[in-house]
Amino acid sequence: MSIESTIVEMAQAARAASVKLASCPSSIKNDVLSKLIDNIEKKSSYIQGENQKDLEHATTMGLSSAMIDRLTIKDETIESMAEGLRDVIQLDDPVGSIVKTWLRPNGLQVSRMRIPLGVIGIIYESRPNVTIDAAGLCLKAGNAVILRGGSEALYSNQALAAVISDSLDEKNLPAAAVQVVPFKDRSAVHALLNQEQFIDLIIPRGGEGLIRFVVENSKIPVLKHFKGVCHVYVDDGADLKMAEEICFNSKVQRPGVCNAMETLLVHQSIAQQFLPLMQRRLIKAGVEIRGCPETCRILPNVKKAEPEDWPAEYLDLILAVKVVEDMDQAILHISAYGSSHTEAIVTSDYNRSRRFVGEVDASVVLVNASTRFNDGGQLGLGAEIGISTSKLHAFGPMGVEELTTTKFVVFGEGQVRA
Amino acid sequence: MSIESTIVEMAQAARAASVKLASCPSSIKNDVLSKLIDNIEKKSSYIQGENQKDLEHATTMGLSSAMIDRLTIKDETIESMAEGLRDVIQLDDPVGSIVKTWLRPNGLQVSRMRIPLGVIGIIYESRPNVTIDAAGLCLKAGNAVILRGGSEALYSNQALAAVISDSLDEKNLPAAAVQVVPFKDRSAVHALLNQEQFIDLIIPRGGEGLIRFVVENSKIPVLKHFKGVCHVYVDDGADLKMAEEICFNSKVQRPGVCNAMETLLVHQSIAQQFLPLMQRRLIKAGVEIRGCPETCRILPNVKKAEPEDWPAEYLDLILAVKVVEDMDQAILHISAYGSSHTEAIVTSDYNRSRRFVGEVDASVVLVNASTRFNDGGQLGLGAEIGISTSKLHAFGPMGVEELTTTKFVVFGEGQVRA
Repeated sequence: MSIESTIVEMAQAARAASVKLASCPSSIKNDVLSKLIDNIEKKSSYIQGENQKDLEHATTMGLSSAMIDRLTIKDETIESMAEGLRDVIQLDDPVGSIVKTWLRPNGLQVSRMRIPLGVIGIIYESRPNVTIDAAGLCLKAGNAVILRGGSEALYSNQALAAVISDSLDEKNLPAAAVQVVPFKDRSAVHALLNQEQFIDLIIPRGGEGLIRFVVENSKIPVLKHFKGVCHVYVDDGADLKMAEEICFNSKVQRPGVCNAMETLLVHQSIAQQFLPLMQRRLIKAGVEIRGCPETCRILPNVKKAEPEDWPAEYLDLILAVKVVEDMDQAILHISAYGSSHTEAIVTSDYNRSRRFVGEVDASVVLVNASTRFNDGGQLGLGAEIGISTSKLHAFGPMGVEELTTTKFVVFGEGQVRA
Repeated sequence: MSIESTIVEMAQAARAASVKLASCPSSIKNDVLSKLIDNIEKKSSYIQGENQKDLEHATTMGLSSAMIDRLTIKDETIESMAEGLRDVIQLDDPVGSIVKTWLRPNGLQVSRMRIPLGVIGIIYESRPNVTIDAAGLCLKAGNAVILRGGSEALYSNQALAAVISDSLDEKNLPAAAVQVVPFKDRSAVHALLNQEQFIDLIIPRGGEGLIRFVVENSKIPVLKHFKGVCHVYVDDGADLKMAEEICFNSKVQRPGVCNAMETLLVHQSIAQQFLPLMQRRLIKAGVEIRGCPETCRILPNVKKAEPEDWPAEYLDLILAVKVVEDMDQAILHISAYGSSHTEAIVTSDYNRSRRFVGEVDASVVLVNASTRFNDGGQLGLGAEIGISTSKLHAFGPMGVEELTTTKFVVFGEGQVRA
């Protein structure tokens, strides 16, 4: 059978499975997740054996040690998968909950009820733990899911999918509720992105290249996350000790992730006092600063920022620094170079805090807190499936609720339209 | 300048205008809408003069009288546009409202705040009143909008756009907040669908051909509405008088619209009694019935339904009728042939009402009420921009709230991530 027709069959089977899942009570979905925890622990050596095949192939292909590290399933990886599933079990089931109810003048009672989206396609790179994390969240929200991991992790992902299917089967749910695409060929991704009749949503997770490829080729709606060029603006009159802690945490606590600060904006009135303090702290952590002319004047040893520094997502221990005249200029800079991801202000001024929150266009806007809080777990959504920087459906971290939609439910006593 | 580069400039200007609109207070947005009401009334003869050019061209091109009728702007059309805008002024402004607030254990206060989507593209056919209706709703929700109406209405739409721009200008808002694409050429639509950098959402309104074209060619998310194949299921033990009224209203009150009933499903135990009553009523209204074998047995003069009748959206005085064994069979039929649009049950049974509501996959599911209530106005959303049958972002009628999204707003006192 061709790749294309296999994908069509998988999508059809997922659609059929999604109908069963949609009306499946929480208790059974949680039973499947518990069973899955047991099974990945019980079959740990089988999973690690299949993972070994991927690792041998990766070594032959000369993959970088960082990539091989992300690909490796160790005992700790299994344990962290299980831990993630335990968190998902604890989440409230959004399906069936009534978001809002109102009464119309003619007596109709109208409600919005949460329902699963249906079938979700997830296209990701490298790390096989995504297979378990994503499957767990999609199942909890009553969705069927088709997973397409990196070709270098195919054996690992198929092993994990087999364990998931067994767990579904043991609880009498259709095994097709979670499927892994069994092809390395990229045409399988094309075929998947064409199944708009059966798949409701595509979530790509990975580098910008992967995401652009998916957006350009998908006929199915895509929830995407391009990049995070996040700013902290330190305002005139800010508590400088607080500013130092927030900026340090935003830049250094985990520099390789999308919610790390990439550019620091400092009000001119405090730059002379604040920048040397901040520099001392950052230099100790190995951060390289690239500054605007005024920054370079205040900090003489600093490298001059080039035009390409302002839109840069370094994902590294590098920080662009710009002194601004006032908050208006900070907001203009963010509007020109920001990525609608995460933006923070450190301020003691009530009016400016309100204006910043109102005017800055980002999925998470923070006052006096680190940019690193843009995260489903940190904001209280529970486990997250990703962060959306597009505005439709979800903007910001996406938890289990963002994997649902609502339908209208109307109760009457014979009303007709006049 | 080429079509493509004009569209890029328009999209850029819309994006810039959207930033101004996003923080524009309700009172000013309502002032613009009031001013627009004055202006379309004052410039009624200019608008009708431009409309006349479209009508002359339409006559030359030999358009059907129905199409010419939809294209014509009369005094009443102007009055109904004004009326629509008055309704939009009355709507609550969703922008800035806090959907939900919660406190994290570390003291962070997290909220979700409604914000505009940004720039919306609307691609529609024929009726120029959509230009005013859509512009009004988009503005109310703080969005900029680019409108691409039917090529046969270009003069009319440009005249309306000029009046809108004047109204924005008089209130010091950027005229580019509402723009009409000034080209008849279809390449302008292609160019528009490529502006994913500047446009956040595309809403196509029109026939299935237009919508499929948009979905297949857009790099921007699309909220779409394919068709309405709506069912009413009359259950065992239903109040037959109520069933008769609901079915009659669902089929006959306005047969040419998407929320009209296309197929009637009747429980076998009541078919013998109910179908002759229903038939008498429908025949008087000129409805042609196409029945399953059991329906044809009970109603001997009825035409036999062919396989293509079950998925048909007649939009006409035609009704497919099927006798089912039980509700399970009704739900299976709906799942096979329904379009996720509107589905209704007439029943007196508590458990079956709950099961129908829970299991049927449609944007609006009704118990003991007419399918004709799937409408933003009827359900209490106010004016609607359309009905979505895709599940992402909005499912069902879309009012002003569905033209917004939410961002997270976080207030701290110096919290950093551990």
